[in-house]
Amino acid sequence: MPTDVVNSFIRAVEQLDLDHALSHLTDDIEYDNVPMGTVHGRDAVRATLAPFIAMFDSVEWVVHHEVASGNLDQGLVMNERLDRFHKGDRTLDLPVAGLFVVRHGQIALWRDYFDKETLLTGMAAIG
Amino acid sequence: MPTDVVNSFIRAVEQLDLDHALSHLTDDIEYDNVPMGTVHGRDAVRATLAPFIAMFDSVEWVVHHEVASGNLDQGLVMNERLDRFHKGDRTLDLPVAGLFVVRHGQIALWRDYFDKETLLTGMAAIG
Repeated sequence: MPTDVVNSFIRAVEQLDLDHALSHLTDDIEYDNVPMGTVHGRDAVRATLAPFIAMFDSVEWVVHHEVASGNLDQGLVMNERLDRFHKGDRTLDLPVAGLFVVRHGQIALWRDYFDKETLLTGMAAIG
Repeated sequence: MPTDVVNSFIRAVEQLDLDHALSHLTDDIEYDNVPMGTVHGRDAVRATLAPFIAMFDSVEWVVHHEVASGNLDQGLVMNERLDRFHKGDRTLDLPVAGLFVVRHGQIALWRDYFDKETLLTGMAAIG
């Protein structure tokens, strides 16, 4: 199931194991934060995610709905998530709808839909 | 397939046939524009959609990806869309990820993820 690789990726992010998380992505992954822009390649995903994740003590990505087609060789996953970022007693909650294209067991496209202001306001409140 | 009712609903919106579009929704539908708020009931959806749609000459909701589970009796659809709203020679493009819960052949939950600033900036540019 293409959900296997997506859910394993999410667990690795929650474990703050960025190396393991990035191993789920193709070398040439397209990572598109829709309202903020697109980066290409696993190294660019690292450069985007690492400093963001480092701001927090812990991370939970709660998947409310997930639906998929195809298989691990060529598949599509969409999920509805609440991405929660904790720092001390404060939490940034970001509602997200994500789309993942899976190719040969890895994520080739990761596109997240969310509201930019919700993210920026939440980051400012976290401090 | 639960996609049948979702795609028929989208076609009705594109035809600017709001009565037909609303007939795809349950009486007690929850309509959640994530960054802007939730309304409940078919009449509230009409009150939200009618004045918005009336701003434009034509509407296209281009579905780039769609994936589903279940059936028409109890199903889930998620789609990735580019909602395009045309007025004269100007177009408001809104990237959206939508989630639809289908019950007994009607849409009981419609939740759209998008960037609020993209919508508001686009509306201002349309004039």
